[in-house]
Amino acid sequence: MRWIRFSTAGRTAYGSLDGEMVTEINGAPWDAHAPTGNRYRLADVTLEVPVIPRTFYCAGINYAAHIREMAAKRGVQPVFPDKADIGYRANNALIAHGQNVVIPADATEKVNYEGELVVIIGKQAKHLSKAEAMSCVFGYTIGNDVSERTWQRGDRTFWRGKNADTFKPMGPWIDTDADLDAMTTIVRLNGAESLRFKTNDMIFDIPTYIEAMTRYLTLYPGDVIWMGTDGTSPDLKHGDVVEVEITGLGTLRNPFVRATG
Amino acid sequence: MRWIRFSTAGRTAYGSLDGEMVTEINGAPWDAHAPTGNRYRLADVTLEVPVIPRTFYCAGINYAAHIREMAAKRGVQPVFPDKADIGYRANNALIAHGQNVVIPADATEKVNYEGELVVIIGKQAKHLSKAEAMSCVFGYTIGNDVSERTWQRGDRTFWRGKNADTFKPMGPWIDTDADLDAMTTIVRLNGAESLRFKTNDMIFDIPTYIEAMTRYLTLYPGDVIWMGTDGTSPDLKHGDVVEVEITGLGTLRNPFVRATG
Repeated sequence: MRWIRFSTAGRTAYGSLDGEMVTEINGAPWDAHAPTGNRYRLADVTLEVPVIPRTFYCAGINYAAHIREMAAKRGVQPVFPDKADIGYRANNALIAHGQNVVIPADATEKVNYEGELVVIIGKQAKHLSKAEAMSCVFGYTIGNDVSERTWQRGDRTFWRGKNADTFKPMGPWIDTDADLDAMTTIVRLNGAESLRFKTNDMIFDIPTYIEAMTRYLTLYPGDVIWMGTDGTSPDLKHGDVVEVEITGLGTLRNPFVRATG
Repeated sequence: MRWIRFSTAGRTAYGSLDGEMVTEINGAPWDAHAPTGNRYRLADVTLEVPVIPRTFYCAGINYAAHIREMAAKRGVQPVFPDKADIGYRANNALIAHGQNVVIPADATEKVNYEGELVVIIGKQAKHLSKAEAMSCVFGYTIGNDVSERTWQRGDRTFWRGKNADTFKPMGPWIDTDADLDAMTTIVRLNGAESLRFKTNDMIFDIPTYIEAMTRYLTLYPGDVIWMGTDGTSPDLKHGDVVEVEITGLGTLRNPFVRATG
C-alpha cells in the first residue's frame, strides 16, 4: 500500500494512493486515522516530503563497494565499519520529489548523489531483538544523500557538506510493502544509467541496525533511517537531473541548480 | 518573560509563568497564540522539555578552557576550531527538568555533564548578517550535554556517547530576556559547586554562529542551538544529582541513575 504526504489549497495532509487517485486521511498513516471524504487526482496535488522525522537517522557507510571506491578516490586504504554506529542528518535539508537541489554558490565542483533506501518507523520501539526488529517498521521510501565532498572532508561536522538546505531529497511516497532481497537501486543522471546495486547488499542489514540502535535509544513513529549507498557518483553540475529508482518502490527525481551570487 | 511547556491531566500545552502562576495559551509562544482561560499553580503541573526542535543544533566545542582541559585529560595537544562549524544532537535523548538521566548498564564510569546555554529560535531565518542575527532569537533555556566519553571516542558517531535516551536534559523554562554578558554558568554536583564560567565567554558568539549557519541553512521556529560548555566534569555515578544554573535564567536539575541488567 502506498501513502503520500501532499498539499493542496494551502493545506498539507496524508492520503492513500491507488493508481492516480489520492484518498485523504486525517492524521498520519501510522496513527489512528480515517478518510476525510476528500479525493484528488495525483496530478492535481503537490507532493511533500513523506515525513518530517522527530529524529533523522542515517547509516552513512553501509556498502562495501562505496567504501572501497571512496577510499580509492582519496588515495587511502578502505576502512570498513566493525559495528552498526548510526549517524544523523538534519531536517532543514529535506525537500520533496521534484524540487530543486540548490548547490550553494561557493560550493566546489565535488557535489555528489547517494541513492538510499529509507526505512520509516511506525511504532515506538526500544530493546528490540534482531528477530523483533521489523515489527516497528511502517514502510519505505527513497532518499538522495547529496554531499559536497570538500566541505564533508574539511569541516569539523557534516553541517554544510551534507545538511545544506535542499541536500536531502526524500520521496516520492511511502510503500508499506517491500521485497528487500528483490530490490535493485538504480541511479540515472540526465536519463542515462549511472549506478546500479542490490539494495539489500548492506554491510549491516535493517534488523541489525534496529537491534543496535534500540539498545540505547527509543525509535518514534515517523523517525526515518537512511540505509546508506553503494558505488560512487560523478560530480554534478547546474542543469543535471538525478533519478534514484528502487525497483518495486518508485523513483525520486530532482533537478540540480547552482545558486548565483 | 518566562514560558513553560507543561502537562496536566494528560494534555501538554505552553503557558506564561508569573511567579508561581501558569497562564495557559493555545499554540507556541513564538506563533500567534491566545490565553485559553486555564490557570494553574506551577507546583500542580509537570514540566516538559521546553520544545521538541525541528533540528537540534549544538556547537560542541566553543570554550577555550574546555578544549585545553579535555586535551590534557587525553594527553594530546588542544585543537581550537578555526570556524563556527555547527554540530547536532538527537531528539530521542531529550528529557525535562527533574527527570532521571539513566546511565546504560554497560556504560563505563566516564559519564560527564556539560552545562550549556541554549538558544531558542523564534522566526524562520536565512542569510542573516551578524548584525541581524539576534532578530531570530526568541529566548534561552539551559541544557546538560551528558556524554559517555569512552563511546564518544570509540564509536564512529556520537549516537550513544552523546545521544542515548535521557542524555539531553533541557529546561526548566524559556526566558525571553537575557543579559548575556552578565550571566555566569554554575554547575553543582550533589549541592557542591563543581564548575563556574562566564556564559558568554565563547570562542564564537551567538551572532557569529547564526550568521555562519544561515548562510547555508534555514532556521525554523522552535529550533534550538546548544552553545557548548567550558571546563570539565568529574565522572558521575548512580545517585548523583547535577544542577546547571545560569544566573538570571534558572536552574536545570536532574538526578543520575544507572540502569541495571
